[in-house]
Order: sequence, then structure tokens, then C-alpha cells
Amino acid sequence: MTDSRPLVISCPLPRTLDLIFTPQRLAGLRARYRLVETVDEELAALPPEVLAEARYIIGQPPLSEATLAAMTGLRCIFNVESNLLPNMPYDAAFARGIHVVTTGAVFAEPVAEIGLGFALSLLRNIHGAEADFRAGRELWGGDGNAQARLLTGAEVSIIGFGDLGRALARVLAGFRPRLSIHDPWLPEARIREARARPVDLPTALREAEVVFVTAAVTSENRGFLGAEAFATLRPGAAFILLSRADVVDFDALLEAVASGRIVAATDVWPEEPLPRDHRARALPGLLKSAHRAGALDVAFQRMGEMVLADMDLIDRGLPPNLCKRAERETVARMRSRPVSRN
Amino acid sequence: MTDSRPLVISCPLPRTLDLIFTPQRLAGLRARYRLVETVDEELAALPPEVLAEARYIIGQPPLSEATLAAMTGLRCIFNVESNLLPNMPYDAAFARGIHVVTTGAVFAEPVAEIGLGFALSLLRNIHGAEADFRAGRELWGGDGNAQARLLTGAEVSIIGFGDLGRALARVLAGFRPRLSIHDPWLPEARIREARARPVDLPTALREAEVVFVTAAVTSENRGFLGAEAFATLRPGAAFILLSRADVVDFDALLEAVASGRIVAATDVWPEEPLPRDHRARALPGLLKSAHRAGALDVAFQRMGEMVLADMDLIDRGLPPNLCKRAERETVARMRSRPVSRN
Amino acid sequence: MTDSRPLVISCPLPRTLDLIFTPQRLAGLRARYRLVETVDEELAALPPEVLAEARYIIGQPPLSEATLAAMTGLRCIFNVESNLLPNMPYDAAFARGIHVVTTGAVFAEPVAEIGLGFALSLLRNIHGAEADFRAGRELWGGDGNAQARLLTGAEVSIIGFGDLGRALARVLAGFRPRLSIHDPWLPEARIREARARPVDLPTALREAEVVFVTAAVTSENRGFLGAEAFATLRPGAAFILLSRADVVDFDALLEAVASGRIVAATDVWPEEPLPRDHRARALPGLLKSAHRAGALDVAFQRMGEMVLADMDLIDRGLPPNLCKRAERETVARMRSRPVSRN
Amino acid sequence: MTDSRPLVISCPLPRTLDLIFTPQRLAGLRARYRLVETVDEELAALPPEVLAEARYIIGQPPLSEATLAAMTGLRCIFNVESNLLPNMPYDAAFARGIHVVTTGAVFAEPVAEIGLGFALSLLRNIHGAEADFRAGRELWGGDGNAQARLLTGAEVSIIGFGDLGRALARVLAGFRPRLSIHDPWLPEARIREARARPVDLPTALREAEVVFVTAAVTSENRGFLGAEAFATLRPGAAFILLSRADVVDFDALLEAVASGRIVAATDVWPEEPLPRDHRARALPGLLKSAHRAGALDVAFQRMGEMVLADMDLIDRGLPPNLCKRAERETVARMRSRPVSRN
Repeated sequence: MTDSRPLVISCPLPRTLDLIFTPQRLAGLRARYRLVETVDEELAALPPEVLAEARYIIGQPPLSEATLAAMTGLRCIFNVESNLLPNMPYDAAFARGIHVVTTGAVFAEPVAEIGLGFALSLLRNIHGAEADFRAGRELWGGDGNAQARLLTGAEVSIIGFGDLGRALARVLAGFRPRLSIHDPWLPEARIREARARPVDLPTALREAEVVFVTAAVTSENRGFLGAEAFATLRPGAAFILLSRADVVDFDALLEAVASGRIVAATDVWPEEPLPRDHRARALPGLLKSAHRAGALDVAFQRMGEMVLADMDLIDRGLPPNLCKRAERETVARMRSRPVSRN
Repeated sequence: MTDSRPLVISCPLPRTLDLIFTPQRLAGLRARYRLVETVDEELAALPPEVLAEARYIIGQPPLSEATLAAMTGLRCIFNVESNLLPNMPYDAAFARGIHVVTTGAVFAEPVAEIGLGFALSLLRNIHGAEADFRAGRELWGGDGNAQARLLTGAEVSIIGFGDLGRALARVLAGFRPRLSIHDPWLPEARIREARARPVDLPTALREAEVVFVTAAVTSENRGFLGAEAFATLRPGAAFILLSRADVVDFDALLEAVASGRIVAATDVWPEEPLPRDHRARALPGLLKSAHRAGALDVAFQRMGEMVLADMDLIDRGLPPNLCKRAERETVARMRSRPVSRN
Repeated sequence: MTDSRPLVISCPLPRTLDLIFTPQRLAGLRARYRLVETVDEELAALPPEVLAEARYIIGQPPLSEATLAAMTGLRCIFNVESNLLPNMPYDAAFARGIHVVTTGAVFAEPVAEIGLGFALSLLRNIHGAEADFRAGRELWGGDGNAQARLLTGAEVSIIGFGDLGRALARVLAGFRPRLSIHDPWLPEARIREARARPVDLPTALREAEVVFVTAAVTSENRGFLGAEAFATLRPGAAFILLSRADVVDFDALLEAVASGRIVAATDVWPEEPLPRDHRARALPGLLKSAHRAGALDVAFQRMGEMVLADMDLIDRGLPPNLCKRAERETVARMRSRPVSRN
Repeated sequence: MTDSRPLVISCPLPRTLDLIFTPQRLAGLRARYRLVETVDEELAALPPEVLAEARYIIGQPPLSEATLAAMTGLRCIFNVESNLLPNMPYDAAFARGIHVVTTGAVFAEPVAEIGLGFALSLLRNIHGAEADFRAGRELWGGDGNAQARLLTGAEVSIIGFGDLGRALARVLAGFRPRLSIHDPWLPEARIREARARPVDLPTALREAEVVFVTAAVTSENRGFLGAEAFATLRPGAAFILLSRADVVDFDALLEAVASGRIVAATDVWPEEPLPRDHRARALPGLLKSAHRAGALDVAFQRMGEMVLADMDLIDRGLPPNLCKRAERETVARMRSRPVSRN
């Protein structure tokens, strides 16, 4: 008797099935599908009938034209690393109606939460006051609030309005900010729907008391926030970098903070890990986080939930819905480096 | 020619007129009212006609029955320190229809904002990771998130649902918490209106991942959160104290944190300033703030705005609206110590 | 053995205990309190010890100074008709700390809901199109939408921002209106808190596409909306009267509708019931409702819920919270006629 | 000198350019693009170089494989009628990366608004009470509210959660309904994100006090709401049909209303226009609307706004965003009949 369950090829490194599926969901995955577990470099060498039968790939393996052509039953590639790499013939996949989807949306919520935490820490110096208190040099009452500001009703800009930008707007909602959004890939109507003001980049920088940068790195925006940009920020503005270090000129950012004109928080760095003697470590006015904003267990487990739900839709002849589709127009522009650790 | 402007006696210490009125509003106050500036201990010795003519007091001076009786034109006492002290015959004032009001609501927004900042810092260890990064011992990616948790969808309890509790619920809204509220002075319907679940104290403590304490100190609740209460908190719960140290058994709180069962943040202390060698200073798991949550310039300036707006209403024969009225039933139960510094 | 339960005098006409208390709540009331049921005109003749012991009155009976003086244990009068009449010495009650409260807030939700229904019916001619369809003269598709307008994003004014105005703002929220509010009894800050724009009356009238009138009748505002006011409305504006007919010059309203300049809906009338031959009945552009906006069973039953919850608070030495207190300053200005039917 | 502007073929019937573009936007369209205006049946006969150069089609013309193949520069077909017809080789288009998009989202807001208006009219009998008042047989106060119910806090089901369902959820938000949603094309997580409960169809029908049907007609759901479905509705439920008559067994719906078990409103009909003598016209309990819920000028003008914004994105090498893409998986299942009038 043959096994009629759909076949799934799994090569999710650096993720693992145990990281992205709860035990219960992994059992469900194994019950409903034939799972062929492999690694990127061995995929092409799988038996031809396995390649031909595979309905789904969980992972983001390099695929040659020939291998993709051999995968005649393929319907969707679930990229669970979630950065799109130039390692497969996307156009050929799209021409055949094969979806390529990512699960990066799972990071939106944890990153947005810590992003708001960074903002509140900068505006009220929560982390600095704690360190002072520990050291016995705390300032009491209003004496400790010389630079303190409210977030409620503040001018806030978000640069990049994808999943993360939207999650930020959601956690900010209770603060009723005057929200300006810059995203050149979105029509203004989408931004207005979110009850925000669509603005160009200079306006987003010039008017904000708090700036959140959530834009992905593309072939067009590398280092687009440099010394000139930082010079236009309001004195005392809080600049919070949540996406990738490559969108800013990092030295210029450190200069701007060192000058005392702005304060900043960043979760991402030009080198990770950062050298022990890097000047950023001791820089006052810079709140530091070691690329840990998104990497929560619950986020990884959401990946598995999304993959299973979208497999179910595709199995029923419907398009995927929870995962985000790579777009023919933009897939070649993506430049965010993949992660090597979870 | 006589001056027909209403007379205001001003004795706002520890506040000052310059602290609570912007220059523009202070000019408006002086233009519209005859201002007699004095200090608490000299008020009773003011000329009888001044006492008789005074429509408003800005301050919270001790008043004898006789002095109050001499103030035949008095309509409202604006207590801008905002804690109600047993230093005047409230019942006599109320019998005559004299309002006694406080401006403590101005602190709700700044305290709620930093309170949410404390919560996010505790849940994601923002302050600890910053200190580690500075010291060159940061953990990267998921390695740094061993205890990290999301606030979105979390079980959150608020103990005490006055202005501060409401402001907290507002800034929490974007996180869509499962919100439980304990406030024995409020009917359950008020809590349900706020889309929260009214609960008794044991439930508020037992089920929450994050507990915010905003309850004022009264004659009935001194130290009501002690070792037994802390023992019922969920392991890993975040306990955030925003109102007054006297509502908790502070040693028991420190024990609970020292044991590692819970983490905590506090803005208020049994002694302020805290002795240099106090054990709390070096306690891991305790996020410390030196009674600075509310003392923002903008908060003090809101006081003046509220006072002016309510004077305008009373001048027009209407009741005050923005300031909070002392209540005949509860005024005698208040035990929050006044502040001596702003 | 004496009965130590607190004593309640009940004379709620035109309400009845069965109308405002569910059977379960009525049983609770009877279990917890000694209930003396009477009618307004017989209250004064109750035995002196009953008057002396009564802690609460449910009703709004005429009370002489002498009767009130005899009620030495009285703490609160629950006016469940909910209009304040000049039939008792309010000042004497207030001087003694006796609360006089009303339960009119129960009508806010049902009136706001039907008010929004009126607005949508006017903007889209739901009622007129239904009548046309029934008569076989309906217009299909866009042909039937000559005057149709959206509410989303529209300019909306609310005149009077008490419980009803707030309930309206709540049900309107999903439409994201540009909301202007006029209420001379409120400071502007209260209106801004509700994310609306405080405006004077001429602005409220001149700029709105939809005007909701929720203002109570007072000694000062009788007929304050007359021909001049209607002349300033935008052509095609929808005017919705929800409070009392006495705040408008009703003939002028009918003229404005008859002229075709505005459309209107009203739930209240200068005479109720309205004469069979009144010109308003056949007036096109006027959506008519026979003072039924608030009179829902669930609203009346909310009254009992509020009364019980506030009795419980007062029994515990706390002030009432759900019912609305009559104010020393404004009680004498109220002019809304009481209802004679539920 | 050649005209380097991109070429647009326009054949938008039954829409017209004047209907969907404001004069200003039409001028912008003509300035930025070469516009070739034709009608469906003449498109194939356009000069080959016109077909080859056309970047966009505004309309939903029948296209043969050959014609589509001749349109080598085509990037997007803007179907402004907005129902997808089986009149072009969609798979061939998708294989080439040509987008086929619809502008039906413009109707979501106007239909949702009137849908809520229908619900409030049914729950409070606004239309019936108006007709009674006109006829001099109105019932006053509570006498007129025998069947009246509140929407606030009610159990509400939405069947089909596309643009219209989402717009409904938005205008319902202020009523804080207990919202259940049935949509078999959506993963449950999407419904939970909208703070609603995902349910199967029987639950959606059985538990609701108000049911909104917004599901499009597909090859699978024709007549899926029949006598059995209506029999499971709660007595007194309000059933509101907003999408297409074909999803219900219309005779069964009329029976259910005639029996008095439910009330209903419908904007769509099995025959349009409906015969003069159709039994539905005089049926009490049925609120009738002549397929006019969406056909507002502002909705049609939104179409042009969306088309222009998405052309701009595609011109810049980005995917369309505001219009909704036809999906390879579902395009063949769509069965909503196109409209012949606007």
C-alpha cells in the first residue's frame, strides 16, 4: 500500500523543526505529511521521485534551474530563515505558480515590543537611572528628569511600514502619537488607512521626536541614513534602529550620539558580535541590544503555526495567507544578510 | 475705584506658581484674579477682609474651623500638592458647598508611561542587557532571551483603578492584554466598562504575569501586599510598584525578588532618599527608580491648566470638572504622605 | 429580635420595582434591606421612626424641609425617573452630605444606538427606499443614491457631551469622524481627551454634515436652536434631535426641513403624543420616532443594577459611583420635563 | 519625436472614465499615459504595435490567448467592474507575471455602512416606526419597543471576511460585539488577529443575534444558506444579506421571514429589477434595498484613485498594492455575475 500523504522536504537550517514546531504541531506535521529531512547541499541529490513528489519545501536551499524543474509537484517553498537570498530561480518558480513565502512576520511583535521599550527607556532614562541607582548616585524626583519627555501625543516617525512598522503602530496606539510614516513602496492611501500621515524621508526625520527605523535593506537603500540625515533630526530626538545596520552609516550614527544632539538605541550592528573594544560600548546616549529583539521562542514557534496553516490552505486549493509571499518585482532587490544563529 | 476681580489666596508650597503655571497662564491668572501670595503659616493672619473675599485657595494650608468660617466667600480649595492631609475641617467645608479638589491626575500619564517602560524592561531585560553590553559580556540573539516574554496577550493585573490605573490601561491597549483589575472602591460595572475583568485581590495576584500596583495608601490598606501575597504570584511574574511604598511590606518584596521567584520594579521607597548601603541597590531582579515617575515639567504645568479651567467653570456657576474632588466619605482615610520636593 | 437591615423607602413611580429590578435583583434587594413601599404623597405620613431610619429613598418624591429633617439617617435619594425636579430642598440635603443621584445614564446606550441608526437612515435613505420598494417605485443601483453620503470621515458635531454624547462618540468611533463637540459646561480639555475638537455653537452648526443634539434642557438653553441656527447648517446636513424638544424652536426645525435645505430625525416632540393632523407627519425629509429611543427593558433593568451597586458602596462607607450625582451648582437649572410613561 | 509615455488601453464598461476618475485625476492620467480608448469587442483589432506597447488595460475585456500573447509589454489588467469573469487566459497572464487586479474594495465601506444601518433599523424598527408615524398609528415610548434590542455587546456573526467583512468589523467596533467569523478561505489566525472568534458555519448561524452575509459567490457555495440554515437561527435573529442573492436559497429566506422567526434585510435579489408583484415587496419583517448599497459616486471615484496609485507603483518596478489581485488558485471559482449598471 502506498503512502498517499503529500511529501515535504525539510531543510530549515539555521532553524530546526524542534525550534519552529511545538511537539504537538510537529506530531501533526508528521502525521499529515511524509517528511524527508535533508540539508541544503544534499537536496539536489535526493531520489528523482522524491523531488518529483515534493509538494512543499521547508527551508531556503539553493536550487538550480534543473533541480527546480525536477520538482514537478512543488507548490510552495517556506523560507523559515525569512531573508530572501539570490539562490534560486525565482522567476521560474513564479512562472509555474510556485509560491515562495517567508515567515519573518513572526518577529514583528517581539521587535515592536522591545522597540517601544527602547523608546520609553530613552525618553525616561530608565536604564541610566537604574545604573545610577545601583552605583549610589541616583537623582531623586524631578532632579532626575532633566531630559525626561512624554511619549503621549509626541511626533513619531516610522521609516518602513511592513509587518514590523504595523506592529509598532499597534503598540504605540495607546500613546496617541502624531504618527508620520515614510515607505516608498507603499501608496499613501495605505498609510492613511493606518491613521498616519504619509511623508517623505526628510519630513520623517526633521519633525520627529522619536524615529523608528524598520526598513529592510534593499539594493537601493544601503546606508541611506547618514550624517546628513542625522543632522536634520530635532535636538534630543530618539533614534531607534530595529531592522538592519546596513541601512545606516553606523559611524555617522555614533557621531551624532557622541555629539549629544540625539540619543539612540540599536539592536543591530555592522559586525555581530561586536568587538570587545568597539567605541559604541561606552558611548553615553546609546542604548545597546545584541540582536536579540526578535529571537524569542514564541516567535519561532509561530513560524511552524504559519507554515502548517498555509499548507492546509494550499492543500485545499487555496493560496497561502499567513506567510508573506516573495514578489517577482522585489525579490531581487533584497539585501538583508541571513542569520547564522537563531 | 475698587478692584472687582475675584480674590485668590496662593500658598502652593512645595509647588510654586512658576512651576505649575506657564508664563502665559500665570499672566492670565494675574490678569483675571487678585492674587494674594502667602505661606501656610501666615494665611490665618491675613486681614479679615482678604479672608472674607477669597474665592479660591491654591494650596493645602492647615485651616482651623475659625479661619474657614472667616472665609465666607470661599468656593474651592485647589490642593496642588495633591495628597489630602488631615489639616482642615473638610466636613465643614463640604457642608457649605466648598469644593476641595486635587490635581494629582496630572501624574497619571507620566507614571503610566514609565510603568509600561518598567514592564517592558523587566520582560525583555533591556536595562540588564544594556549593562552587560557596556561591560562586554552581552549575549547575542536567542542566547540573550532566556527569560524574555511578550506583553501582547499577557495576563496583566492592575491593583487600584483610579486615574493612574486608567492611564495604564490606555497605554497597554495596543498590547491587547487580558486585563484583570482589583479595586474595592469601584463597582464591577465600572471595570467591565473599561473592558477588563473585575477580580478580588487573590485572583489579581495569582493569575497575572505582570502586576501593576497603583493603589493609594489608606487607613485600611497599609502593607496589604506582604510575604503571603508575593508567595502567590506566578513564578517569573513582574511586579511593578507605582503608587506608594507603604502599600507593600517592602522587606517581603525584596525577599521575593532575592529568591528569584519574581522580578520587580519600584519607583517608591520606604525611605527617600534610600541609604547608600541599602540592600536593594545591588539586588538582581529589581529595577530601581528614585521617585521620579511623575515629576515631569509638563505634569506640573498641567496642574495650572486644570486649576485655571476649573476656576473658570466655578466663576460661571458650574462645578469643577478637571480636578478631582475630595469626597466626604473617603477624605479621612487617605494616608499618602505629602512630598517635600517636586 | 429587631431587624437590623437598613431601611429603604420605595416610591419609584412612574417606574415600578418590577420594571427596574430583575426578579433576581429584586429578591436581593428585599433580602438585604427592609423595604417600605409607598407613593409620593404618602411618604410624609410614614411613621416617624420609619422616616428616621430610612437610609435610602428609591424615587423622586416631593420632600418638605420638615420631612427631610425628620429623615435623620438618610444617605442617598435614588431618582430613578432621572429628571431633577424642583420638589425638594436640595441644598439642605447636600449640606448634610445626602447624595441625590439619577440613573439617566442607562438611556445613553440605547439612545446613541438609535441615533446612529437615524443618521445612517438619513444619509442613505434606508427608510425612504424601503417605503419606495414596498410601493413598487424603487430606484436601482446608483439611481437610488442621488443624495447618498458616507459617514466615514464625515464632519460630525455633537451638541452636549454628557453620558449620551459620550455613548454617541463611542458608536461613531469605527467611522473615524472628524468630531466637533460643543458643551459650555465642560472644559475644553475634557473634549480633547475624547479625541474631539471643542467648538463654539456657531462652528458646531456651520461645519457639520451631521449634527447630533443631546443637550438637556436648562433654564438657559430653552429654544437655543432656532431659525438662525438652522440657516447656518450646511446644505444637505442631517440634524438629529435626541434629547428634548424644548431645546429647539420646533416650528423653525420643520421649516428648515420643509425647505429642503436639511434633513432631520427626531425622537422628541413639543407635544407627546403628537396630534394626528400635525404637519410633521407627512413632511418629507423628517425621520420620525415616538419618544422611544431610550425606553428599552434592558435600560430600565440597568437602573436597578446601578442602584444596588451604589447602595453597596454607600453601605461600605464609600460614595456612590455608577449613578450620577445632582450638583449643587446645576440642580436648580434643570428643566427637562419628567416622563409620565416608561 | 516619439511619445515615450506608457500606453494604456481603456475599455472600462460598464464604468466610464468620467465615473471612476475625478476631472483632476483624469487629467493626470492623460498627462502621464497615452490613452487608447476602445470597447471590449474592438480591442483585439487594435494595431499590433498598440497591443505590443500597452502596459496596462483598464477594463475586463475578453482576451484570447493570441491577443494576450500579442500584448508583450502588458503588466497589469485593472478590472474595474470588479467581478472576475472566465473571459481571459488567467494562467497565461500569471505565468508571464501580468497582474490581474480588481477594485471591488471601494464598495466595502459604503456597503458596510448601510449594512450597519440595516442592522440598527431591524433591531429598533426605525423604518417601521417611521411608516407607522406617517400613518398616524405610532406607538409611544416603551410601547413601541416590544421587539427592540441593543447591538452593544450582542452576538454578531459575519460570514465571509474579505474587504467587506473587515469594513463591517470596523464600523461595528464601537458596539463591542461578541464577533464570530466564518470564512473557510482564511486561516483562523487571521480572524483572531481581528479580535474575533473563528467559527464553522453552523456555529455562526446558531449563536448569532445578527448575521451579516458578505461571502462572494463561488463554484462551491451557491445557495449554501437554505431552509436548514435558516431553521437554526435564533428566534428573532436579524439576517442581513449584502453580497449576492445566489449564496442563499431566496425562497427559503422569504419563508423564514414570513414565518416570523427571523427578520431580514437584503440589498441583492435573484432578479434585478424585481417584478412588481413579487411577494417580497409586502413581506413584513423584510427590509428591502434595490442593489444600491455600494453604488456611490465616492466609491467609483476611489477606483480611479486606486488604479492611478497602483500604476505608479508598477511604473516604479513595484507590485500593485491597493487593488486586489486575482489569485491563480481561486480565479476560476468566482461566480458573481457582473453588473450591467453602475
